[in-house]
Amino acid sequence: MPVWETLGRRYLWQSQWYNLRQDRVRTAAGHEFTYTLVEHPGAVWVVPVTSDGQVVLIWSYRYPVGEYCLEVPAGGLSDGMPPEGTARRELLEEIGGQPAAIQYVGRFSTSNGISSEIAYVYLATGVELSQTHRELTEDMELRLVPVAEAILMARSGEISDGPSALALLWCEPLLPRVR
Amino acid sequence: MPVWETLGRRYLWQSQWYNLRQDRVRTAAGHEFTYTLVEHPGAVWVVPVTSDGQVVLIWSYRYPVGEYCLEVPAGGLSDGMPPEGTARRELLEEIGGQPAAIQYVGRFSTSNGISSEIAYVYLATGVELSQTHRELTEDMELRLVPVAEAILMARSGEISDGPSALALLWCEPLLPRVR
Repeated sequence: MPVWETLGRRYLWQSQWYNLRQDRVRTAAGHEFTYTLVEHPGAVWVVPVTSDGQVVLIWSYRYPVGEYCLEVPAGGLSDGMPPEGTARRELLEEIGGQPAAIQYVGRFSTSNGISSEIAYVYLATGVELSQTHRELTEDMELRLVPVAEAILMARSGEISDGPSALALLWCEPLLPRVR
Repeated sequence: MPVWETLGRRYLWQSQWYNLRQDRVRTAAGHEFTYTLVEHPGAVWVVPVTSDGQVVLIWSYRYPVGEYCLEVPAGGLSDGMPPEGTARRELLEEIGGQPAAIQYVGRFSTSNGISSEIAYVYLATGVELSQTHRELTEDMELRLVPVAEAILMARSGEISDGPSALALLWCEPLLPRVR
């Protein structure tokens, strides 16, 4: 299938987390227009499961939506670190978690009409919890729930972070205690 | 739980689809810093099912990720139109679809660390297809797949748009032909 052509590019805003980029584009059909998008390095969402079958969720204040939200550990790629390394770093930083094993589950785009962000999903099993290394801006606490309950929470919207809910549902067939 | 306080606000960029907003904020713990976020009016994702049990998917070029993506009809809220009205509009515009019934399934945030966007999920059943009214910038075609296959595609990542995949998995228990 034909792709669109980029005729020009400029940055409206740049940061260490993401940029706002404005491109002049030509569609496959030859139409020209300006497309403004979030240029994002990608991010990981990690489903952490302890050896006794509990999913470790984070109850965290999310300023953009003005609410405390339930989610799994997540964070943006940076410094050329590959997704699995980022997944291990976020586990350690956000929940003080050390996994016995970590596996790649899949990838999806979080907002493909606006942002280039790709979400990489990992399942971390045999997770041991220790002291966390939280970032200054994160108001959060941990909630441990049985795997089957976490899946129900992902289906009901109680886990309101969409990428976290999808990551959990993608991990469902890999979790022996669910059914 | 305490929320964060907004001390100041300015817009770095504004459009009819979304804005880039920069706020000065104070956390519950008293830390002050600058938070830059996408201010979004919200959007709908609609799972359209025909009377013979086919899900209507869109194969569409998404410039931000540089790929053709499989997804369900979706679109941003605008002009004060409520989510259900927007869902009906997107069905008509993107697939030329008229539903016999439409029901609200739930809501989630698409990217709660960066964006205020809330996704409203609808299930449209008994959908009849007619001529579409596509927007100029949308290179797309339609794919009809049986409900059970669409669910598998949402689980496997073949439907690469995360919100579409989650919308389908949320609709799964409401679709009698799945199992």
